[in-house]
Amino acid sequence: MTLFKKHNLILTKALEEIEKRGYYSPYFEIPSSKVYGEGVKEASVVSFKAQLNNKFVIKGLESDKYIGKEVSPYGFDLGITYPSVKADKLVADSKTAMNQWKKLSLDERTGICLEILDRINKRSFEIANAVMHTTGQPYMMSFQAGGPHAQDRGLEAVSYTYRQLSKIPTNARFEKPIGKDKPPIVQNKKLVVAPKGISLIITCSTFPTWNSYSGLFASLIAGNPVIYKPHRNGILPIALTVQTAREVLEENGIDANVVSMIISDDRSETQGLVKNKNVKIIDFTGSTEFGDWLENNAPQANVYTEKAGVNCLVIDNFDDLKGMSRNVSMSLSLYSSQMCTAPQNIFIPKDGIVSNGEKVSFDEVAKLICGSVEKLLSVEERAVEILGAIQNPDICKRVDEAGSLGEVLLASKSIKHPMFENATVKTPVVIKVSSKDKNLFHNEHFGPVILLIETESREDSLTVWQETIELHGAITAGVYSSDEAYIEKTEDIAIEEKVNLSVNLTGHILMNHSAAFTDFHATGDNKAANCALSNDNFVSGRYAVVTIKRDA
Amino acid sequence: MTLFKKHNLILTKALEEIEKRGYYSPYFEIPSSKVYGEGVKEASVVSFKAQLNNKFVIKGLESDKYIGKEVSPYGFDLGITYPSVKADKLVADSKTAMNQWKKLSLDERTGICLEILDRINKRSFEIANAVMHTTGQPYMMSFQAGGPHAQDRGLEAVSYTYRQLSKIPTNARFEKPIGKDKPPIVQNKKLVVAPKGISLIITCSTFPTWNSYSGLFASLIAGNPVIYKPHRNGILPIALTVQTAREVLEENGIDANVVSMIISDDRSETQGLVKNKNVKIIDFTGSTEFGDWLENNAPQANVYTEKAGVNCLVIDNFDDLKGMSRNVSMSLSLYSSQMCTAPQNIFIPKDGIVSNGEKVSFDEVAKLICGSVEKLLSVEERAVEILGAIQNPDICKRVDEAGSLGEVLLASKSIKHPMFENATVKTPVVIKVSSKDKNLFHNEHFGPVILLIETESREDSLTVWQETIELHGAITAGVYSSDEAYIEKTEDIAIEEKVNLSVNLTGHILMNHSAAFTDFHATGDNKAANCALSNDNFVSGRYAVVTIKRDA
Repeated sequence: MTLFKKHNLILTKALEEIEKRGYYSPYFEIPSSKVYGEGVKEASVVSFKAQLNNKFVIKGLESDKYIGKEVSPYGFDLGITYPSVKADKLVADSKTAMNQWKKLSLDERTGICLEILDRINKRSFEIANAVMHTTGQPYMMSFQAGGPHAQDRGLEAVSYTYRQLSKIPTNARFEKPIGKDKPPIVQNKKLVVAPKGISLIITCSTFPTWNSYSGLFASLIAGNPVIYKPHRNGILPIALTVQTAREVLEENGIDANVVSMIISDDRSETQGLVKNKNVKIIDFTGSTEFGDWLENNAPQANVYTEKAGVNCLVIDNFDDLKGMSRNVSMSLSLYSSQMCTAPQNIFIPKDGIVSNGEKVSFDEVAKLICGSVEKLLSVEERAVEILGAIQNPDICKRVDEAGSLGEVLLASKSIKHPMFENATVKTPVVIKVSSKDKNLFHNEHFGPVILLIETESREDSLTVWQETIELHGAITAGVYSSDEAYIEKTEDIAIEEKVNLSVNLTGHILMNHSAAFTDFHATGDNKAANCALSNDNFVSGRYAVVTIKRDA
Repeated sequence: MTLFKKHNLILTKALEEIEKRGYYSPYFEIPSSKVYGEGVKEASVVSFKAQLNNKFVIKGLESDKYIGKEVSPYGFDLGITYPSVKADKLVADSKTAMNQWKKLSLDERTGICLEILDRINKRSFEIANAVMHTTGQPYMMSFQAGGPHAQDRGLEAVSYTYRQLSKIPTNARFEKPIGKDKPPIVQNKKLVVAPKGISLIITCSTFPTWNSYSGLFASLIAGNPVIYKPHRNGILPIALTVQTAREVLEENGIDANVVSMIISDDRSETQGLVKNKNVKIIDFTGSTEFGDWLENNAPQANVYTEKAGVNCLVIDNFDDLKGMSRNVSMSLSLYSSQMCTAPQNIFIPKDGIVSNGEKVSFDEVAKLICGSVEKLLSVEERAVEILGAIQNPDICKRVDEAGSLGEVLLASKSIKHPMFENATVKTPVVIKVSSKDKNLFHNEHFGPVILLIETESREDSLTVWQETIELHGAITAGVYSSDEAYIEKTEDIAIEEKVNLSVNLTGHILMNHSAAFTDFHATGDNKAANCALSNDNFVSGRYAVVTIKRDA
């Protein structure tokens, strides 16, 4: 049985689901031994420990030089080193591999990609450990977002790319009538999907797999070879991914260099790679500064970026304040607000709001939110499973200095992790600022720094919010209001500024949540991101079609 | 009956045909009174004459200032002036119009666009006169390429955009199971297609309608308003288009400013428009210099360009030299090689080729081609209907000075037009150069300047050809060879360099031909053009999807 047939059910379902955008998640999100196999979790811990302070070997990517200085946010050095192969060699090897890869049929490439996803899925526990100890995510999130949910995003990209390419016939017959008594003009045409070239994926330190599998699989299905350039503190999850992909490629008689990885301590080498004429696609998640630089300095490539955004939440007159504060407290606490989808700016009218016909002051709303955060994080054992660890010292510094921004409504506390004594765990700091102090909230304070912003009025909340997105972009937005007319205004702004909007969430789902097959991650049309995961635009620039025509 | 229903058959067929890429041309290409109506052609001449030396009035685009200095390549001033509305006003009016336009349903917008196409089709004779006397195309081409074939391209873009948008549900239900004994998590989602913003179309002097209708209709279907910026000598065909579109919009209760036009004699005004933050899409056909400038200087917009290319034809050992030279002579002569798809560089081995087992020298091949051109253009009345007129004095100068490039194998002749005594009509000049003199053929000599290039060998022809495309891009390429192994090499190069390839054309179809629904015009992946007409990539960057989610 071909790999395409083996995985055909999952592809068929995925192709249906991208037209529904409802719920679909074929890779099981619970770290259950029933699904993933007895002892697999335990074995993953053993293999993680064995990796520590060792060389990470990837067949066919050997090097004389092994480097790596990853530090776990849970308080220890990983000590793992990775092969540092020269950029020039990687480019040459990728080009060679592309010549074989692009000649496979769409179904053949798709079968192999689905097998890679399946095999990555089977390593979800290993990836969970790797994600946890590079990003600082709590364990459950590391498993889910780093594993099955990232795999869902990969499959989603497979589906969008497959759908587009499957609509391009490989052969066409041109038959033009030219009059009753004359034979028609006939030509035969061959339509060849040609990959753009090398696809470079530059990953971030917080969601290395989740943010990169869309680009990985979209590029691969379209025939491009991929070179990963992982963040210096997020190599292990990518190394596992690259290793798995290469194994599957090799097993199927394909040059494994279709997927490779650059690990370099020479900045000029990676900068050169970004501008290399053979690199025709770049996917990037990270800082606005570098994302903007990429967009302007790699003219030979199509550049897909997700950068910093300033996510805002508007609190208007709303009846279920308990539901609101419970939901928001989780939004602010989950992975210590180190999600690119977490709200940072919360706009509340300075004269307060109305809830169930009663006036609730700004301070009372603030107290509800801060109280919910405190309650949520009151038990340390539970808190660490929500907060995870702080990814890097810059974020710690930002939290420590947040008091200079305004009145501290809720101070950050350091929490001792029961299992990792050197882990850096911090609860969110909540600060009160005025909507007039735009310099304070018109930029991203990445990490658990939350601003409750006093606006002049309900209307001013909308104005300030819109201005913030227009100038700085956002991945998400939220509103709480019991006034449908107000919600409509909010929706109009969301549509105008192209930001996804969560309305009145009080249940399990947070505005942070972004799930494949239902939530387009970012809209791709404001300053926070120039692409969305995944849609037709995310995949259509990864190939060209060359037509070869002959008289019949 | 809604307009969508009225035109539903044509859309249904078009949606089928974009998946076949065979032959489809719903707008009739013969200027026949049976199809277009008795007396319509004659009336178009009357109305063209009435337009000369007059104001061109467009309802709702009135101005105090009317400007225009178009000159017919057939030797007279048009004397038509057009309303010059300030860019700021056009932008403001477009934004207002967008707010209504984007709120229509996909089917409503599609119905209106199909009606616009239908009404433009009915004015094909008027457009033919306008195209002829701005571009210099011969009459039949003006009618076909300016009229029905341009309309085909418009419909093709409608289909690709419609197909993409129709696959995005307007509502979705997220229903996630969370265990046997618990109710699922349910959310309702609204998915809104949001236009990017104002779409600016900058048109060229040679194919104003054909090259712009794809962008026009792709942008409109996706909800964007369009502002045309026509070439200073190609306003009339665009003015007729804009007028027609506005009439249809108004008849249907839509703000006519969904389609408008800027005519300005202030260069800083149009440059400002290109960088205006509300202009989010730019379609451009024209010079490489300005196209490159646009790609780098309008970061707020998605820029789609078709620029200059260096189209090459490789002549290898080939048996049907008569068929070849007949076909090539038409390629070189049609509209005086002022088509962006016409071959310029013809590579022939210096030691000649083999045809039917016999050696044919370089000079003999050259003689065959030149002889066919001479024969084709030997009768003046017939010649002018193939050549048309030279579009502008720069092209004349280029032809006159072509002798400095190398040995003249065929001199250009000036031909007196039997109907337009001041028309500038010139036959192609054919020059012999060596493949070593790259500076002579590594750029576009736009117009009827043809280079026959002596290469070292059959293999050298391929090397020189590949290098030319890699460095300078090409819209088309061609090869004549009776050796399938050689053709395969040629195809590999075409796929690698992303250029459409014509193989052994000896019949009616030329390598210049590019027809909607079968030929992707350009591949969008070499230096001659960053987009193709039309494909998924051409339309996917013209909108974003905003999701609004609520707990159910």
